[in-house]
Amino acid sequence: MNKQLLQPLTDQVLSELRTLIGAARHASLAVSEKGTGHPAISRVALSTKADGTPVLLTSALAPHTAALEAEGRCSLLIGDVGKGDPMAHPRVTLFCTALRVPDIERAAMREGFLSHHPKAINYIDLPDFGFWKLSVERASYNAGFGKAYSIKGAQLVQ
Amino acid sequence: MNKQLLQPLTDQVLSELRTLIGAARHASLAVSEKGTGHPAISRVALSTKADGTPVLLTSALAPHTAALEAEGRCSLLIGDVGKGDPMAHPRVTLFCTALRVPDIERAAMREGFLSHHPKAINYIDLPDFGFWKLSVERASYNAGFGKAYSIKGAQLVQ
Repeated sequence: MNKQLLQPLTDQVLSELRTLIGAARHASLAVSEKGTGHPAISRVALSTKADGTPVLLTSALAPHTAALEAEGRCSLLIGDVGKGDPMAHPRVTLFCTALRVPDIERAAMREGFLSHHPKAINYIDLPDFGFWKLSVERASYNAGFGKAYSIKGAQLVQ
Repeated sequence: MNKQLLQPLTDQVLSELRTLIGAARHASLAVSEKGTGHPAISRVALSTKADGTPVLLTSALAPHTAALEAEGRCSLLIGDVGKGDPMAHPRVTLFCTALRVPDIERAAMREGFLSHHPKAINYIDLPDFGFWKLSVERASYNAGFGKAYSIKGAQLVQ
């Protein structure tokens, strides 16, 4: 967003944004397609750790997993659309780097993920499924027309 | 998607997919961020021409417009999430190249866009807003667990 159009970030806006992200159960994930570099996009199941770190569960059969393995840089778009103009509804883009979750952290992450996604019990333990945690570099929050904010990762993840 | 997991494409699936795309009023757009190449993502207002060509209306003040001007390769994710597991709801990824709509086509496109987005009357004629048409190279349709399809652009846009 053109910097002159950005609004000052307040504690209230930051709190509203953390709630939006923490409540989200899915996101759109942008990656660079492995092999072609074509910008690619897919839906992912999302959960958030207590410190605000986004967590994804992906299947090794899905192209986004191969893309993240080749290049960790990615972005998430979070925020649903309601009635009326779809561009008037809040959404946030998180610019991230994805990191594979090591086995030692898996059990704790599995529990947190299932509490947010009970139906994932049907596939969470399949051998092709694995977790990613996303290191958030920066975010761009669009709360509706004329309400754009720029946020540093450290302001969201603590 | 792993090719062995793809389902055969039928006329019924293709018809269902065309309906999903034609009805959509918004999409997530993945681009390569200008300057950094970081995969970036944003919400865009979407309309579809009678031949199936996706049409976007974007503001020159938004970073996705600068990204598309620098590199036309992009992807759209279309499909809303309902109740239950977000991964069980149909969505499609369209791998596209974005082309600026020339002035000569603008009037016709404006009319079609407004019929799909009546509230866009509030900003469609502002000088920073412009149309893009997307040339669809290929698509990946995920209609729910175990229902993945690969589609050529020419099968969707005719």
